[in-house]
Amino acid sequence: MSEYPSILLEQAVNQMASLPGVGRRTALRLVLHLLRQSDQEVEAFSNAFTRLKKEVIYCRECHNISDTEICPICGSARRDHSIICVVENVQDVMSIENTGQYNGVYHVLGGIISPMEGIGPKDIEIDSLLERISKGGVDEIILALPTTMEGDTTNFYIYRRLQNAGIDIKISQIARGVAVGNQIEYTDEITLGRSIVNRTDFKG
Amino acid sequence: MSEYPSILLEQAVNQMASLPGVGRRTALRLVLHLLRQSDQEVEAFSNAFTRLKKEVIYCRECHNISDTEICPICGSARRDHSIICVVENVQDVMSIENTGQYNGVYHVLGGIISPMEGIGPKDIEIDSLLERISKGGVDEIILALPTTMEGDTTNFYIYRRLQNAGIDIKISQIARGVAVGNQIEYTDEITLGRSIVNRTDFKG
Repeated sequence: MSEYPSILLEQAVNQMASLPGVGRRTALRLVLHLLRQSDQEVEAFSNAFTRLKKEVIYCRECHNISDTEICPICGSARRDHSIICVVENVQDVMSIENTGQYNGVYHVLGGIISPMEGIGPKDIEIDSLLERISKGGVDEIILALPTTMEGDTTNFYIYRRLQNAGIDIKISQIARGVAVGNQIEYTDEITLGRSIVNRTDFKG
Repeated sequence: MSEYPSILLEQAVNQMASLPGVGRRTALRLVLHLLRQSDQEVEAFSNAFTRLKKEVIYCRECHNISDTEICPICGSARRDHSIICVVENVQDVMSIENTGQYNGVYHVLGGIISPMEGIGPKDIEIDSLLERISKGGVDEIILALPTTMEGDTTNFYIYRRLQNAGIDIKISQIARGVAVGNQIEYTDEITLGRSIVNRTDFKG
Protein backbone atom coordinates (compact mmCIF):
# COMPACT_ATOMS: atom_id res chain seq x y z
CA MET A 1 0.00 0.00 0.00
CA SER A 2 1.17 3.53 -0.78
CA GLU A 3 1.97 6.01 1.96
CA TYR A 4 -1.19 7.93 0.94
CA PRO A 5 -4.70 6.66 1.64
CA SER A 6 -5.81 7.65 -1.88
CA ILE A 7 -4.16 7.60 -5.31
CA LEU A 8 -5.95 10.83 -6.28
CA LEU A 9 -4.54 12.47 -3.18
CA GLU A 10 -1.07 11.13 -3.95
CA GLN A 11 -1.23 12.46 -7.51
CA ALA A 12 -2.30 15.90 -6.29
CA VAL A 13 0.54 15.89 -3.73
CA ASN A 14 3.02 14.84 -6.44
CA GLN A 15 1.96 17.76 -8.62
CA MET A 16 2.11 20.26 -5.77
CA ALA A 17 5.53 18.93 -4.71
CA SER A 18 6.79 19.43 -8.28
CA LEU A 19 6.85 23.17 -7.58
CA PRO A 20 10.34 24.42 -6.64
CA GLY A 21 10.88 24.66 -2.90
CA VAL A 22 7.70 22.78 -1.99
CA GLY A 23 8.44 19.60 -0.04
CA ARG A 24 6.08 16.64 0.21
CA ARG A 25 4.85 17.51 3.69
CA THR A 26 4.02 21.09 2.66
CA ALA A 27 2.46 19.79 -0.56
CA LEU A 28 0.13 17.53 1.45
CA ARG A 29 -0.86 20.44 3.69
CA LEU A 30 -1.60 22.64 0.67
CA VAL A 31 -3.60 19.93 -1.12
CA LEU A 32 -5.69 19.24 1.99
CA HIS A 33 -6.29 22.99 2.27
CA LEU A 34 -7.56 23.03 -1.33
CA LEU A 35 -9.77 20.04 -0.58
CA ARG A 36 -11.52 22.06 2.13
CA GLN A 37 -12.44 24.78 -0.40
CA SER A 38 -15.62 24.73 -2.50
CA ASP A 39 -15.80 23.08 -5.94
CA GLN A 40 -15.89 26.53 -7.54
CA GLU A 41 -12.80 27.67 -5.68
CA VAL A 42 -10.77 24.60 -6.65
CA GLU A 43 -11.97 25.04 -10.24
CA ALA A 44 -10.87 28.69 -10.21
CA PHE A 45 -7.51 27.70 -8.71
CA SER A 46 -6.78 25.12 -11.42
CA ASN A 47 -8.15 27.16 -14.31
CA ALA A 48 -5.93 30.15 -13.53
CA PHE A 49 -2.81 28.18 -14.48
CA THR A 50 -4.10 26.39 -17.58
CA ARG A 51 -5.60 29.65 -18.84
CA LEU A 52 -2.38 31.58 -18.25
CA LYS A 53 -0.38 28.88 -20.03
CA LYS A 54 -2.77 28.75 -23.02
CA GLU A 55 -3.47 32.44 -23.45
CA VAL A 56 -0.27 34.13 -22.34
CA ILE A 57 1.32 36.47 -24.88
CA TYR A 58 4.91 37.66 -24.90
CA CYS A 59 5.24 41.26 -26.04
CA ARG A 60 6.57 41.37 -29.65
CA GLU A 61 8.91 44.21 -28.71
CA CYS A 62 10.32 43.51 -25.26
CA HIS A 63 9.28 39.83 -24.71
CA ASN A 64 7.74 40.59 -21.35
CA ILE A 65 4.59 38.68 -20.37
CA SER A 66 1.58 40.57 -21.65
CA ASP A 67 -2.14 40.31 -22.41
CA THR A 68 -1.62 42.04 -25.75
CA GLU A 69 0.74 41.79 -28.76
CA ILE A 70 2.47 44.94 -27.57
CA CYS A 71 2.71 45.32 -23.79
CA PRO A 72 1.44 48.47 -22.03
CA ILE A 73 5.00 49.72 -21.44
CA CYS A 74 6.12 49.32 -25.08
CA GLY A 75 2.76 50.74 -26.22
CA SER A 76 2.96 53.83 -24.02
CA ALA A 77 3.74 57.19 -25.62
CA ARG A 78 4.77 58.52 -22.21
CA ARG A 79 7.76 56.15 -21.96
CA ASP A 80 11.15 57.06 -23.38
CA HIS A 81 11.67 54.57 -26.22
CA SER A 82 15.27 55.68 -26.78
CA ILE A 83 16.47 53.89 -23.62
CA ILE A 84 16.21 50.09 -23.30
CA CYS A 85 16.83 48.41 -19.95
CA VAL A 86 18.00 44.82 -20.51
CA VAL A 87 16.82 42.43 -17.77
CA GLU A 88 16.84 38.70 -17.15
CA ASN A 89 13.16 38.11 -16.43
CA VAL A 90 9.63 39.33 -15.69
CA GLN A 91 10.29 39.77 -11.96
CA ASP A 92 13.14 42.18 -12.73
CA VAL A 93 10.82 44.39 -14.83
CA MET A 94 8.36 44.47 -11.92
CA SER A 95 11.11 45.29 -9.42
CA ILE A 96 12.46 48.17 -11.51
CA GLU A 97 8.94 49.48 -12.21
CA ASN A 98 8.29 49.44 -8.45
CA THR A 99 11.22 51.80 -7.87
CA GLY A 100 9.43 54.50 -9.91
CA GLN A 101 12.90 55.64 -11.05
CA TYR A 102 12.81 54.47 -14.66
CA ASN A 103 10.81 55.78 -17.58
CA GLY A 104 12.41 53.96 -20.51
CA VAL A 105 11.42 50.61 -22.01
CA TYR A 106 12.69 47.07 -21.36
CA HIS A 107 14.07 44.03 -23.09
CA VAL A 108 13.46 40.74 -21.28
CA LEU A 109 16.16 38.19 -22.20
CA GLY A 110 14.29 35.30 -20.57
CA GLY A 111 17.51 34.03 -18.99
CA ILE A 112 21.23 34.72 -18.92
CA ILE A 113 24.16 32.91 -20.52
CA SER A 114 25.12 29.99 -18.31
CA PRO A 115 27.37 27.26 -19.70
CA MET A 116 26.79 25.29 -16.47
CA GLU A 117 23.08 25.09 -17.17
CA GLY A 118 23.57 24.77 -20.92
CA ILE A 119 22.04 28.17 -21.71
CA GLY A 120 23.79 29.80 -24.66
CA PRO A 121 23.25 33.15 -26.43
CA LYS A 122 20.81 31.52 -28.90
CA ASP A 123 18.55 30.38 -26.05
CA ILE A 124 17.79 33.90 -24.88
CA GLU A 125 16.47 37.03 -26.61
CA ILE A 126 19.79 38.56 -27.67
CA ASP A 127 19.29 38.42 -31.45
CA SER A 128 15.95 40.21 -31.07
CA LEU A 129 17.66 42.87 -28.91
CA LEU A 130 20.19 43.57 -31.67
CA GLU A 131 17.45 43.66 -34.30
CA ARG A 132 15.52 46.11 -32.18
CA ILE A 133 18.51 48.39 -31.70
CA SER A 134 19.58 48.24 -35.37
CA LYS A 135 16.16 49.58 -36.38
CA GLY A 136 17.39 52.88 -34.90
CA GLY A 137 15.94 55.33 -32.38
CA VAL A 138 17.78 53.79 -29.43
CA ASP A 139 20.38 55.99 -27.74
CA GLU A 140 21.28 53.90 -24.70
CA ILE A 141 20.94 50.40 -23.30
CA ILE A 142 21.17 49.83 -19.56
CA LEU A 143 22.45 46.38 -18.63
CA ALA A 144 20.52 45.41 -15.48
CA LEU A 145 21.51 41.76 -15.24
CA PRO A 146 22.44 39.95 -12.03
CA THR A 147 25.87 40.96 -10.66
CA THR A 148 27.11 37.38 -10.99
CA MET A 149 29.59 35.63 -13.25
CA GLU A 150 26.71 34.70 -15.59
CA GLY A 151 25.39 38.26 -15.59
CA ASP A 152 28.84 39.65 -16.35
CA THR A 153 29.35 37.12 -19.16
CA THR A 154 26.02 38.08 -20.70
CA ASN A 155 26.83 41.80 -20.35
CA PHE A 156 30.14 41.29 -22.11
CA TYR A 157 28.59 39.14 -24.83
CA ILE A 158 26.01 41.84 -25.61
CA TYR A 159 28.76 44.50 -25.62
CA ARG A 160 30.82 42.49 -28.12
CA ARG A 161 27.83 41.78 -30.36
CA LEU A 162 27.05 45.50 -30.54
CA GLN A 163 30.71 46.27 -31.32
CA ASN A 164 30.86 43.63 -34.05
CA ALA A 165 27.65 44.94 -35.58
CA GLY A 166 29.22 48.41 -35.64
CA ILE A 167 26.41 49.80 -33.48
CA ASP A 168 27.64 52.79 -31.53
CA ILE A 169 25.22 53.60 -28.69
CA LYS A 170 25.76 54.34 -25.05
CA ILE A 171 25.99 51.15 -22.98
CA SER A 172 25.62 51.53 -19.22
CA GLN A 173 25.17 49.13 -16.36
CA ILE A 174 23.39 49.46 -13.04
CA ALA A 175 25.59 50.87 -10.26
CA ARG A 176 27.32 48.34 -8.02
CA GLY A 177 28.37 49.04 -4.47
CA VAL A 178 27.29 48.88 -0.85
CA ALA A 179 23.49 48.56 -0.66
CA VAL A 180 21.66 51.51 0.88
CA GLY A 181 21.14 51.01 4.63
CA ASN A 182 23.90 48.39 4.97
CA GLN A 183 26.66 48.37 7.58
CA ILE A 184 30.18 48.51 6.15
CA GLU A 185 31.40 45.70 8.41
CA TYR A 186 28.76 43.30 7.09
CA THR A 187 29.37 44.06 3.41
CA ASP A 188 31.20 41.29 1.57
CA GLU A 189 34.86 41.94 0.72
CA ILE A 190 34.48 41.94 -3.05
CA THR A 191 31.64 44.47 -3.03
CA LEU A 192 33.42 46.65 -0.49
CA GLY A 193 36.75 46.48 -2.34
CA ARG A 194 35.17 47.45 -5.64
CA SER A 195 33.12 50.20 -4.05
CA ILE A 196 36.36 51.82 -2.91
CA VAL A 197 38.11 51.40 -6.28
CA ASN A 198 35.01 52.69 -8.12
CA ARG A 199 34.27 55.49 -5.66
CA THR A 200 32.20 58.41 -6.98
CA ASP A 201 32.44 62.17 -6.38
CA PHE A 202 30.78 63.32 -3.18
CA LYS A 203 28.11 65.88 -3.99
CA GLY A 204 27.85 67.72 -0.71
CA MET B 1 -1.72 49.98 -14.35
CA SER B 2 -1.55 46.90 -12.16
CA GLU B 3 1.71 45.79 -10.61
CA TYR B 4 1.65 42.79 -12.98
CA PRO B 5 2.28 43.10 -16.72
CA SER B 6 -0.64 40.74 -17.43
CA ILE B 7 -4.07 40.20 -15.90
CA LEU B 8 -3.84 36.44 -16.53
CA LEU B 9 -0.53 36.40 -14.68
CA GLU B 10 -2.03 38.40 -11.83
CA GLN B 11 -4.98 36.01 -11.53
CA ALA B 12 -2.66 33.00 -11.46
CA VAL B 13 -0.51 34.69 -8.79
CA ASN B 14 -3.64 35.52 -6.76
CA GLN B 15 -4.70 31.89 -6.83
CA MET B 16 -1.26 30.60 -5.90
CA ALA B 17 -1.01 33.17 -3.09
CA SER B 18 -4.37 31.97 -1.71
CA LEU B 19 -2.55 28.87 -0.46
CA PRO B 20 -1.64 29.12 3.24
CA GLY B 21 1.94 30.26 3.82
CA VAL B 22 2.53 31.26 0.19
CA GLY B 23 3.35 34.97 -0.13
CA ARG B 24 2.91 36.98 -3.32
CA ARG B 25 6.58 36.94 -4.23
CA THR B 26 6.78 33.16 -3.85
CA ALA B 27 3.49 32.80 -5.73
CA LEU B 28 4.92 34.75 -8.67
CA ARG B 29 8.03 32.56 -8.68
CA LEU B 30 5.91 29.39 -8.65
CA VAL B 31 3.59 30.63 -11.41
CA LEU B 32 6.54 31.61 -13.63
CA HIS B 33 8.01 28.16 -12.99
CA LEU B 34 4.73 26.59 -14.16
CA LEU B 35 4.75 28.84 -17.23
CA ARG B 36 8.11 27.35 -18.25
CA GLN B 37 6.64 23.83 -18.22
CA SER B 38 4.95 22.22 -21.24
CA ASP B 39 1.21 22.56 -21.93
CA GLN B 40 0.76 18.92 -20.91
CA GLU B 41 2.55 19.44 -17.62
CA VAL B 42 0.49 22.50 -16.69
CA GLU B 43 -2.65 20.60 -17.67
CA ALA B 44 -1.62 17.66 -15.45
CA PHE B 45 -0.83 20.05 -12.60
CA SER B 46 -4.24 21.72 -12.72
CA ASN B 47 -6.24 18.55 -13.35
CA ALA B 48 -4.81 16.79 -10.30
CA PHE B 49 -6.62 19.21 -7.97
CA THR B 50 -9.98 19.42 -9.74
CA ARG B 51 -10.02 15.64 -10.13
CA LEU B 52 -9.21 15.08 -6.45
CA LYS B 53 -11.92 17.54 -5.42
CA LYS B 54 -14.54 15.97 -7.71
CA GLU B 55 -13.76 12.30 -7.19
CA VAL B 56 -12.50 12.11 -3.62
CA ILE B 57 -14.37 9.69 -1.37
CA TYR B 58 -14.36 9.71 2.42
CA CYS B 59 -14.39 6.18 3.90
CA ARG B 60 -17.89 5.36 5.20
CA GLU B 61 -16.39 3.82 8.33
CA CYS B 62 -13.45 5.99 9.42
CA HIS B 63 -13.97 9.12 7.26
CA ASN B 64 -10.38 9.06 6.02
CA ILE B 65 -9.73 10.14 2.43
CA SER B 66 -10.09 7.11 0.20
CA ASP B 67 -10.50 5.98 -3.41
CA THR B 68 -13.20 3.51 -2.36
CA GLU B 69 -16.36 3.50 -0.22
CA ILE B 70 -14.45 1.58 2.45
CA CYS B 71 -10.78 2.53 2.76
CA PRO B 72 -8.01 -0.11 2.57
CA ILE B 73 -7.44 0.01 6.35
CA CYS B 74 -11.11 -0.46 7.30
CA GLY B 75 -11.45 -3.12 4.59
CA SER B 76 -8.45 -5.13 5.73
CA ALA B 77 -9.02 -8.43 7.56
CA ARG B 78 -5.47 -8.20 8.92
CA ARG B 79 -6.25 -5.10 11.00
CA ASP B 80 -7.66 -5.33 14.54
CA HIS B 81 -11.15 -3.83 14.24
CA SER B 82 -11.70 -3.93 18.03
CA ILE B 83 -9.36 -0.94 18.57
CA ILE B 84 -10.18 2.48 17.12
CA CYS B 85 -7.58 5.24 17.15
CA VAL B 86 -9.31 8.65 17.12
CA VAL B 87 -7.33 11.30 15.21
CA GLU B 88 -7.87 14.85 14.03
CA ASN B 89 -7.00 14.51 10.34
CA VAL B 90 -5.59 12.58 7.41
CA GLN B 91 -1.98 13.57 8.14
CA ASP B 92 -2.27 12.02 11.62
CA VAL B 93 -3.36 8.67 10.13
CA MET B 94 -0.35 8.79 7.82
CA SER B 95 2.00 9.68 10.69
CA ILE B 96 0.77 6.83 12.90
CA GLU B 97 0.85 4.39 9.97
CA ASN B 98 4.45 5.41 9.33
CA THR B 99 5.45 4.34 12.86
CA GLY B 100 4.49 0.75 12.01
CA GLN B 101 3.42 0.39 15.68
CA TYR B 102 -0.36 0.27 15.24
CA ASN B 103 -2.52 -2.45 13.78
CA GLY B 104 -6.00 -1.27 14.74
CA VAL B 105 -8.33 0.95 12.73
CA TYR B 106 -8.90 4.73 12.78
CA HIS B 107 -11.61 7.33 13.14
CA VAL B 108 -10.84 10.70 11.50
CA LEU B 109 -12.75 13.50 13.26
CA GLY B 110 -11.91 16.05 10.55
CA GLY B 111 -11.12 18.66 13.19
CA ILE B 112 -11.21 19.21 16.94
CA ILE B 113 -13.57 21.21 19.14
CA SER B 114 -12.46 24.83 19.12
CA PRO B 115 -14.85 27.52 20.39
CA MET B 116 -12.32 30.13 19.21
CA GLU B 117 -12.67 28.95 15.61
CA GLY B 118 -16.38 28.20 15.99
CA ILE B 119 -15.93 24.44 15.64
CA GLY B 120 -18.41 22.55 17.82
CA PRO B 121 -18.99 18.81 18.38
CA LYS B 122 -21.57 18.74 15.56
CA ASP B 123 -19.02 20.00 13.04
CA ILE B 124 -16.76 16.98 13.43
CA GLU B 125 -17.29 13.22 13.19
CA ILE B 126 -18.17 12.51 16.83
CA ASP B 127 -21.76 11.27 16.32
CA SER B 128 -20.52 8.79 13.73
CA LEU B 129 -17.84 7.61 16.20
CA LEU B 130 -20.50 6.86 18.84
CA GLU B 131 -22.69 5.10 16.29
CA ARG B 132 -19.74 3.02 15.21
CA ILE B 133 -18.89 2.02 18.80
CA SER B 134 -22.50 1.31 19.76
CA LYS B 135 -22.74 -1.26 16.95
CA GLY B 136 -20.45 -3.36 19.16
CA GLY B 137 -17.19 -5.20 18.57
CA VAL B 138 -15.05 -2.31 19.80
CA ASP B 139 -13.01 -2.96 22.98
CA GLU B 140 -10.85 0.16 23.12
CA ILE B 141 -10.54 3.63 21.71
CA ILE B 142 -7.20 5.41 21.71
CA LEU B 143 -7.49 9.20 21.81
CA ALA B 144 -4.61 10.48 19.65
CA LEU B 145 -5.61 14.13 19.42
CA PRO B 146 -3.19 17.07 19.72
CA THR B 147 -1.94 17.64 23.28
CA THR B 148 -3.45 21.12 23.32
CA MET B 149 -6.37 22.74 25.12
CA GLU B 150 -8.62 21.96 22.12
CA GLY B 151 -7.40 18.37 21.97
CA ASP B 152 -8.02 17.93 25.71
CA THR B 153 -11.51 19.45 25.39
CA THR B 154 -12.35 17.08 22.56
CA ASN B 155 -10.96 14.10 24.50
CA PHE B 156 -13.10 14.98 27.50
CA TYR B 157 -16.19 15.56 25.36
CA ILE B 158 -15.85 12.11 23.76
CA TYR B 159 -15.31 10.55 27.21
CA ARG B 160 -18.51 12.17 28.54
CA ARG B 161 -20.56 11.20 25.49
CA LEU B 162 -19.51 7.58 25.94
CA GLN B 163 -20.36 7.74 29.67
CA ASN B 164 -23.78 9.30 28.97
CA ALA B 165 -24.51 6.64 26.36
CA GLY B 166 -23.67 3.98 28.95
CA ILE B 167 -20.94 2.59 26.72
CA ASP B 168 -18.28 0.90 28.85
CA ILE B 169 -15.12 0.36 26.80
CA LYS B 170 -11.48 1.02 27.53
CA ILE B 171 -10.52 4.61 26.73
CA SER B 172 -6.81 5.34 26.47
CA GLN B 173 -4.78 8.27 25.27
CA ILE B 174 -1.35 8.49 23.67
CA ALA B 175 1.50 8.77 26.20
CA ARG B 176 2.67 12.28 27.01
CA GLY B 177 6.14 13.13 28.23
CA VAL B 178 9.62 14.09 27.12
CA ALA B 179 10.08 13.31 23.42
CA VAL B 180 12.62 10.62 22.61
CA GLY B 181 16.06 12.12 21.94
CA ASN B 182 15.30 15.39 23.73
CA GLN B 183 17.51 17.07 26.32
CA ILE B 184 15.87 17.54 29.72
CA GLU B 185 17.01 21.17 29.96
CA TYR B 186 15.28 22.10 26.71
CA THR B 187 11.97 20.41 27.56
CA ASP B 188 9.21 22.87 28.42
CA GLU B 189 8.25 23.11 32.12
CA ILE B 190 4.71 21.77 31.79
CA THR B 191 5.77 18.67 29.88
CA LEU B 192 8.70 18.06 32.24
CA GLY B 193 6.58 18.62 35.36
CA ARG B 194 3.89 16.22 34.21
CA SER B 195 6.44 13.65 33.09
CA ILE B 196 7.70 13.52 36.70
CA VAL B 197 4.23 13.34 38.23
CA ASN B 198 3.16 10.68 35.71
CA ARG B 199 6.43 8.71 35.87
CA THR B 200 6.26 5.06 34.82
CA ASP B 201 7.94 1.95 36.25
CA PHE B 202 11.47 1.44 34.99
CA LYS B 203 11.74 -1.91 33.27
CA GLY B 204 15.46 -2.55 33.56
